[in-house]
Order: sequence, then C-alpha cells, then structure tokens
Amino acid sequence: MPHISEKAQIVPASPIRKLVPYSEAAKKAGKTVYHLNIGQPDIQTPEAALKAIHHFDEKVLEYSHSAGIESYRIKLSASYKAQGIPVETEDILITTGGSEALIFAMLCTCNPGDEVIIPEPFYANYNSFAVTAGVKVVPVTAKIEDGFALPAMEEIEAKISPRTKGIVICNPGNPTGYLYSKTELEALAEIVKKHDLFLYADEVYREFCYDGAQPHSVLNLPGLEAHVLMIDSVSKRYSMCGARIGALISKNKEVMAAALKFGQARLSPPTIDQVAAEAALSTPQSYFDEVVREYVARRNIMVDGLNSIPGVFCPKPKGAFYCVARFPVDDAEKFCQWLLESFSFEGQTVMMAPANGFYSTTGAGKNEARIAYVLNQDALRKAVECLRVALDQYPGTLR
Amino acid sequence: MPHISEKAQIVPASPIRKLVPYSEAAKKAGKTVYHLNIGQPDIQTPEAALKAIHHFDEKVLEYSHSAGIESYRIKLSASYKAQGIPVETEDILITTGGSEALIFAMLCTCNPGDEVIIPEPFYANYNSFAVTAGVKVVPVTAKIEDGFALPAMEEIEAKISPRTKGIVICNPGNPTGYLYSKTELEALAEIVKKHDLFLYADEVYREFCYDGAQPHSVLNLPGLEAHVLMIDSVSKRYSMCGARIGALISKNKEVMAAALKFGQARLSPPTIDQVAAEAALSTPQSYFDEVVREYVARRNIMVDGLNSIPGVFCPKPKGAFYCVARFPVDDAEKFCQWLLESFSFEGQTVMMAPANGFYSTTGAGKNEARIAYVLNQDALRKAVECLRVALDQYPGTLR
Repeated sequence: MPHISEKAQIVPASPIRKLVPYSEAAKKAGKTVYHLNIGQPDIQTPEAALKAIHHFDEKVLEYSHSAGIESYRIKLSASYKAQGIPVETEDILITTGGSEALIFAMLCTCNPGDEVIIPEPFYANYNSFAVTAGVKVVPVTAKIEDGFALPAMEEIEAKISPRTKGIVICNPGNPTGYLYSKTELEALAEIVKKHDLFLYADEVYREFCYDGAQPHSVLNLPGLEAHVLMIDSVSKRYSMCGARIGALISKNKEVMAAALKFGQARLSPPTIDQVAAEAALSTPQSYFDEVVREYVARRNIMVDGLNSIPGVFCPKPKGAFYCVARFPVDDAEKFCQWLLESFSFEGQTVMMAPANGFYSTTGAGKNEARIAYVLNQDALRKAVECLRVALDQYPGTLR
Repeated sequence: MPHISEKAQIVPASPIRKLVPYSEAAKKAGKTVYHLNIGQPDIQTPEAALKAIHHFDEKVLEYSHSAGIESYRIKLSASYKAQGIPVETEDILITTGGSEALIFAMLCTCNPGDEVIIPEPFYANYNSFAVTAGVKVVPVTAKIEDGFALPAMEEIEAKISPRTKGIVICNPGNPTGYLYSKTELEALAEIVKKHDLFLYADEVYREFCYDGAQPHSVLNLPGLEAHVLMIDSVSKRYSMCGARIGALISKNKEVMAAALKFGQARLSPPTIDQVAAEAALSTPQSYFDEVVREYVARRNIMVDGLNSIPGVFCPKPKGAFYCVARFPVDDAEKFCQWLLESFSFEGQTVMMAPANGFYSTTGAGKNEARIAYVLNQDALRKAVECLRVALDQYPGTLR
C-alpha cells in the first residue's frame, strides 16, 4: 500500500472540532449543548445578498474571471476607499474564502523551509496553511496577563532568522479578540522594513470593533506597499461564512501577478457567491451598527460573567467575537471534555475550544479555552451559569 | 523589497489565456472571435439546480460540513452506485472544484520532490497543482498519430524512479478527448500495483462519451482500493463551472482522513453551490442524452471539418469536448496569434489554445492546438471555414 505524505501526517485536525464526538454523545443523551466552540455567527445575512441569490438570472452558471468578477472588484475598491483604505481594483484578487487568500499569500512569498513569525495564540488553521506551503511557524507568545497585546519588539526580533519571510497577524484577533493599536502596528512596520519582511494581515473582523475603538489597516501604514499582504473575507462581515468569498490585497505587483497565476490554475472563485458578495456591499451602516451593538452586549455578558466566577480570568477584548479565558483547572482540554461527557446543569452544558490548539508552543495555553460569543444573550447567560456550576463540581478545579 | 517565492516564479500562466490581449484587441477592431480556446460550455445548467438557488431559504448563509453537506454526499454515493461505481458516503470529500480535489490528492500523498507521471498532452493546470504541492511532473508522450492512446507500458515503466508516487490520468481526456479502454486501464492497474503507486484519475468528463463508447472508472479496477484517488466535479456534467463543486473520492482511509484535515483548514466548500449540485442530481437522463447528441454533432462538424482542410490532422475523440489538431504551420502559437492579430474572414476569426502549453516536454506539440467545441453548430462551421481560409493565407503555412 502506498504511503501518505509527511504533510498529511503533520497537518493538524481542527481544534474546534476535536471534541465533536463528545458533543454529539451529549446531545444524544438529551443535553442542550451551548456551542461556544465555533465561529459561525447566528446573525442574519443581509437581505441584499440573499435577494441577489434568489434573483440570479443567468441560464448558465459560468466561471467568473480568475481574479473575481470585475464589477465586484471595482465596487470593493470603492468600498475600501470610502473607509479610508487606499485599494485599487488591480490590488485585489478575489479568493475562495480568506483561507485561500492566506494559502496564496504564503505560496507566493515563501519557499519551503522559510519561516513566518506569528503572535500566539493564533487562528489554528494558519498551521495548516503553513504546512500546505511547507512553511515553518515560529510563535512569539502574547500573554493573557497583558490582554494578549503585541509582544515587545525585542521579543519579536529575537525570533527573526535568515529564513524568516514575514510576520502574520490577525487584527482584530481570532482567538483573542485583541485589537492592535496604531502604535503597535507602527512598531511592526518598523521591524518589517528593517528586516525586509512581508507583513501578512488577516483583517476579516475589521467591522467588529467595540467601545468606540477604530481598526487600523496595515494598508494605511506608509512605506509598506511592497511588504503588505492583506487578507479579507465576507464571511463574518455579512454573516456569509458559507459563501467562501475572500480577497488577497496587495500593492506589490510581483506578488499579485504570481497570485493570479495560482488563481488561474483553480479557474475562479464561486460565481453566485460573488454576485451575493457584490450585492452585500450595499448593506446599510445601520446593519453593522445593530450587529456591533449586539456583540457588545454579548461580550459584556460573557466576559463580565466569566470574570465574576472565582478563579476565572478573561481579558475584555475590543474586537472580533472571541475571547480566551483562563480557568482554574488542571487541564482545559480535559475540562472541556468533562463538560460534555460528565456534566450537566438543568439539562444543559457548554462546548468550548481548548486553547492549546491555538498555541504553537508545546504546553502553552494549557488552562485556557477560546469562547466564541456567537449565541443569543439568553443562551450566553445560561452558558456562564453552567460554567460557574461546573467549576464548583469539576474534580480538577484548582482554587 | 522582499522577494516572491520560487514557486511563484515557476508556476505557469494559463495557456488558454495567454493570447487574451490579442483577442481583446481583435474584438476592439470589430472582429467576431470564435472562442475555441476555453472549456466554458454554452449548455444550459439544469433547471433543478437553478431552482434550488432561487429557492434557497436559509436566513444565514452558514458554513457546511468540511467534507460537504451530508445529504449531498449520501445522494452522490447513491448516484455513483446507480452507475455501477462502488462509492460509499465516507469515501467522498466534497471539494471546491475538481482543482481543489487534485491539490488535496497531491498534498496528501506526495512529499516535495516526489514525482508523478502524466501522459502528455495533459490539462495544463496539473502543472500548477504540482508546483503548489512541490511535486515534479514527469511526462510520457502520447502520440497524435495513435489518436493519443495510452503510451506502451514499457514507456511508462521507463519513467518510474524511486521518487515516483503515482500516475495522473484524465479520462475522457482534456485536451485530447481520448477515452481510455478497459484494457488500457487494466494495464495501468498492473503498473500501479507492481510499483506500489497511487493512481489519480480525473474523471470529470465521464458523461461525455460518444459513439456508444462507455467510460470505465478507475474505481471499478479490482484490488486497487488503496491506490486509487478519483477526482470529480459538477462543472462540466451540469454546465455548472461557476459553482466550483468537485469531489475527492478514495477508499484509502488514511488518504481520506488526511484530506479531511486539509478540508477542515479551509472550513467548507461553498454552501449554496452544494445545494444546487445536490438538486442537480435529479437531472433526468434525457438532459444528458440531448447534451451528448449535441456534442456528437459539434465534434463531427469540427473534427471532420478540420480533417477536410489539406494538411490538417485531427484524431476523432470519443469523449469530453476537446480535440487536439496538428496544423501545417511553422509554429501553432504564432499561427494562433496571427489569427487574432492579422487575419479575418468576413469579419471573423478564431481563437485556439496553442498545444505546447499542454505538453511538459520542451518543443512537443509545436504545430498543434487544442480546440474546445463548445460553441453552437453554426459558429463551429464558420470557425472551420475561417481556419480553411486562414491556412491559405498564413505566411507560415507549410504544404
């Protein structure tokens, strides 16, 4: 029998799905499971996008341009400009989700064996994209005590080797919800220029900023035109995760020409989904205002609730819809499994993603879990109460 | 300025789009251009698929399962079984187009530097997928004089090295339209077993078989369960190229488990498009009968027409909707460019894909071009007449 590849052996399974067999068993046993493990929002997709799908009137569902439907790219460029982000149509390659954008970004800029530095905890799928491109992830640890702020410049620079090709950030961050300040981004810009690196910025949560905080795009950093690759997606912005429409954006012409060749090989992103994404651009600001209001309320319930439980610590994030909390337990993965297998409170329990899957450093995040506050406020209140009761009962609780 | 990667430098541009600037200039100059260069059929997408799109009634466009919507996989398995192809639900991973299926197939089975043998001419994007996975393509040349039949076993075996991981076939073939016989597939099976290789079979044109010929799936080859990876797609079958829904199919559990991990990293294939593909499974046989009847008529017009031009030779293919013809010219790429730049007949001209882009061996296919007979019969007749007149005028015609 022929053997699978080394990449196939090392590519990690999704940490947010690791405990799925236990949640399925819990549901079979009649428990209500609050899913705080996945980033699938319950927010409605904008009417304009759904209407565009219902009214799709072509008779042949054809390929689109490999770089994406032209009218969509033109409108997308205008939409960035309206936000003060200088993006021309030719700086955009529409991709099949933000995932493909990041794979293209790594394939276009990194040779096998090259390294990228990523502040951890980070979005776990970056590991898989790095494996795909043969790239080594070098973590630099952001501390929960600092609210997951950017590690000090010296710490980042200490990780730079002759094989380092760039730094990957997610801003606002999954899984931490941390929003980088302008000062932090300027510090990154300095490192990137000094060492001639690429800066890959996943900005798919840009619209999810709270308490009056403003997101800063890497595309606004002066003098970084040749260095910056921005990854975007409609998944969270318009609650259109299933559309699989993202974008790779860069002013580096060499990178964009190469990305288009990889894009031509896979022919095109899905057509109807682009039509829907284009229509979604007309979504009124009131939609986002409402969504942000809702997420602020959810965050407050979840984070304030968590911090009201003795021994639990959770920094209050300013963006995205995730947080990482530290629990007073021996091992968060065991705790998460126990919640599904052995615990219930009034017939309910909670599913969280153990945070170890979001760290690259072995052993890091052992007593932390990622929580996505994507459920309604009532469900989140009940989830918090479950966790409070659970920590009183869990045999591995340390307090 | 940081540099792009080696892969970005060697990944080829699409050979079917190489001459696009010339075709655009021709159109600007008022010429009618018959596009025989691209495989975008004009056949209507089945009503059932379009209806499913129009009636999509979810309020949130959510991710699907990473392996694809379960009900779709179940029905797809039943559909294979109805065709006599033994595929269980768990043997299926729904992918974003056949493209992603082939990338996953290579990533899961090949280490960087490994080799795959491919009979040439072959679908040019295989080169890009191989670059993505760091795999070296080793061509074995199929001859136009033999109608592009499978090269002799000895020729294939002579290409096997310690780094060979498998053999890639496309059946029926793009760009040749060649349909492998049962005997040819059994010969391949013998090689694959003897040398413990994988056999990757792109069968996306399975429904397009003519003159009563039957397609043989590699999944029906006995004893090859651990070796076979089949790539499928709805793009051509239902004229749904823009849906980007394909599938990776294998009975090798280790391969499928690895493929699912890569699948989890990119989250899911597009949701609505899977809903449409699932609905398309109910398309009646009469749809395919009509499509096949139409393509047989088109093929006959095109291939018989080409062979009626002095000095032109085109084997008559039994499948897909492509053919590769040899022209009595110095250089088919120059000829194709000249057709767009310098020629017109009654205000019309023809765009073809020079075949050199489908060969891996330097210099091979120099006087050949790929033709996709995806236009209506009248347009194809006019295209043939253009070529007849053009060859009388082209300064590089050798006859």
